[in-house]
Amino acid sequence: MHENFFYDLKVYYEDTDAGGVVYYANYLKFLERARTEALVELGFSNKKIKEKFGALIIVKSCNIEYIKPSYLEDQLKVRSFIKSVTKTSFFMNQFISRDEDLITEAKVHLVFVNEEGKPMKIPGSLFEDLKPYFCDSIKV
Amino acid sequence: MHENFFYDLKVYYEDTDAGGVVYYANYLKFLERARTEALVELGFSNKKIKEKFGALIIVKSCNIEYIKPSYLEDQLKVRSFIKSVTKTSFFMNQFISRDEDLITEAKVHLVFVNEEGKPMKIPGSLFEDLKPYFCDSIKV
Amino acid sequence: MHENFFYDLKVYYEDTDAGGVVYYANYLKFLERARTEALVELGFSNKKIKEKFGALIIVKSCNIEYIKPSYLEDQLKVRSFIKSVTKTSFFMNQFISRDEDLITEAKVHLVFVNEEGKPMKIPGSLFEDLKPYFCDSIKV
Amino acid sequence: MHENFFYDLKVYYEDTDAGGVVYYANYLKFLERARTEALVELGFSNKKIKEKFGALIIVKSCNIEYIKPSYLEDQLKVRSFIKSVTKTSFFMNQFISRDEDLITEAKVHLVFVNEEGKPMKIPGSLFEDLKPYFCDSIKV
Repeated sequence: MHENFFYDLKVYYEDTDAGGVVYYANYLKFLERARTEALVELGFSNKKIKEKFGALIIVKSCNIEYIKPSYLEDQLKVRSFIKSVTKTSFFMNQFISRDEDLITEAKVHLVFVNEEGKPMKIPGSLFEDLKPYFCDSIKV
Repeated sequence: MHENFFYDLKVYYEDTDAGGVVYYANYLKFLERARTEALVELGFSNKKIKEKFGALIIVKSCNIEYIKPSYLEDQLKVRSFIKSVTKTSFFMNQFISRDEDLITEAKVHLVFVNEEGKPMKIPGSLFEDLKPYFCDSIKV
Repeated sequence: MHENFFYDLKVYYEDTDAGGVVYYANYLKFLERARTEALVELGFSNKKIKEKFGALIIVKSCNIEYIKPSYLEDQLKVRSFIKSVTKTSFFMNQFISRDEDLITEAKVHLVFVNEEGKPMKIPGSLFEDLKPYFCDSIKV
Repeated sequence: MHENFFYDLKVYYEDTDAGGVVYYANYLKFLERARTEALVELGFSNKKIKEKFGALIIVKSCNIEYIKPSYLEDQLKVRSFIKSVTKTSFFMNQFISRDEDLITEAKVHLVFVNEEGKPMKIPGSLFEDLKPYFCDSIKV
């Protein structure tokens, strides 16, 4: 079983477009907010990771399906879990829903890079922290 | 051979983030601007498609790879082509580059929906207009 | 004394720019989120106001001072109060701060418009609801 | 007479909101794009100013009036001129219009700051470059 992280948010005018729905790029903002808070639950923050390890977490790829539209003032929930981890990266699955309705589903590949932007090994202590949160065979 | 559409843009402060690079969600804005202008070259616009056919083009899925970062005041070029067309949708491949460097690569699935948000057949005349722009076997 | 509304938020990557600080336009998003939640505290929402009164609240002017920068992962607080009300509009003062530091200060003029975009009288019951929240002589 | 700078842009989905109009914060993006291009016409860019003078231009205040709404696929024009200059800052007036219609009008106060964020004198050569572009008595 995967450990799930949950993040709640509300749709404001800034998130919507003239089609009356949330603009497709803005879901990536919601996903990133949820990943940031998942990191915080693990005891980290982007700022700490930078200061402590000289590392940044960047998005290498994002595969997103738009299943149902969402609307102004919707209450959305993002569920995220770590699907698998490699030496330098991890994969997250993320689901945005409104009550029982699945709105979008995303697979995101995140890579640790150093200050020159080169991939680097996930800092050891953080790697250990991540481990309990996934069950797939660890690809190292 | 596919017909390519090209769209040029410049990176402004609004597009960047505190990592010093273009924020990952904002590439989806660039892709959408480029698709809009490709439509215009074909003689259409989102507004016209809505007025004439009661149709909206929505993004069903987006698969984006982030290959290199881009920076403030970069001049970027988006190359787009229609990969294939179905009765109600089409697939576009889009590439964002800075000079010789490929920055991102995206595969986008676009669906025609009516005003209730239900998939609808691509309006006939528009379908004919799209045809010359792809060479893959048409999946109808 | 004015009744204050408070709204807390956190700065995410989406909010920042390559200068390493929150992008100046994004503070207007924070202000709008805070106004939306103030409305909710009064028992209203943009959606309800539209459905019940056929009204939209639009921004007529915004006068914003940028006092100090804010940064990634800052915890910000927006304090808002209604400065005065006219028959068709109201003025809000809004302050964004991080702990003791004042970050921005804004004066916003908001107008009720009908579905054609014409100014309309603030619906009576809502006007009564707004009254206790300001003390300036009411300009009617 | 003031020297005017002109910048053209088109409204895309990303710029609009569920009210069917351009979202109020997004006009500040348009204003900033126009200021950036005015700087380019003067032979500068944000990047050059940073590299050459260690300076950043930040927005100290923005006073914006929303006069008429604008819509998806509108062609907008931003007219900008330098209203006045001080030792460390300058004031720009900016007007966004669609054909004959004035959409928004903004007064923006811009300050030169060094890398610590402290106000600094406008670099001499740039100050000379700015001078021909305004006629108000120079406040030094």
